Amino acid sequence: MERITQYRQAIRQLLAAQASLDQNSVDQEIDCQMVVDTENDHYQLLDVGWEGLKRVYNCFIHIDIKNDKVWIQRNMTEVDLGQALVELGVPKEDIILGLHPAYKRPYTGYGVA
Amino acid sequence: MERITQYRQAIRQLLAAQASLDQNSVDQEIDCQMVVDTENDHYQLLDVGWEGLKRVYNCFIHIDIKNDKVWIQRNMTEVDLGQALVELGVPKEDIILGLHPAYKRPYTGYGVA
Repeated sequence: MERITQYRQAIRQLLAAQASLDQNSVDQEIDCQMVVDTENDHYQLLDVGWEGLKRVYNCFIHIDIKNDKVWIQRNMTEVDLGQALVELGVPKEDIILGLHPAYKRPYTGYGVA
Repeated sequence: MERITQYRQAIRQLLAAQASLDQNSVDQEIDCQMVVDTENDHYQLLDVGWEGLKRVYNCFIHIDIKNDKVWIQRNMTEVDLGQALVELGVPKEDIILGLHPAYKRPYTGYGVA
């Protein structure tokens, strides 16, 4: 359980760092939302709003904790989130690249479900 | 504050009803995730997973509470979420259709920010 608490902390740290980068570049009609659902272990960063008459709705990072593993579900940034999580203390075998189909995961160097 | 607690309850009820519909029709490799972030008041339903070799990542409902108003930020369902919230006791003037640009909102019959 202590391990999971540490993973949650690492994810929050990662999102906070990315959110601060994002807010520098966006408009004031666009919210950068940080979603922290510790009940179901879903974590996201999204841009939501309007750019003039264009609707903006873009989830650019989504990470879950599922069965004690950290799943990267979405990454529209240039940051290597797997590597960033490793640097924050999450062991590689406890990170799952959900962005790769299951059959590829044994070859990623990261964990499998 | 009691009003906001009631709005949170209404949103949860709405998501739970929609999630139960969704789970009947999806595959077992696709999770229907309910996101409930009561810290920042973000609420979502998403399908996340794999359909064979096709990645599925689809947020189909997103509702926020912001400055005591209920914002509908995304709705990829056929349900009229505004009407559904009204039926769950949220007054029309406290619902904002974020999906419409700000200049249109005074003409929606719903609230303005």
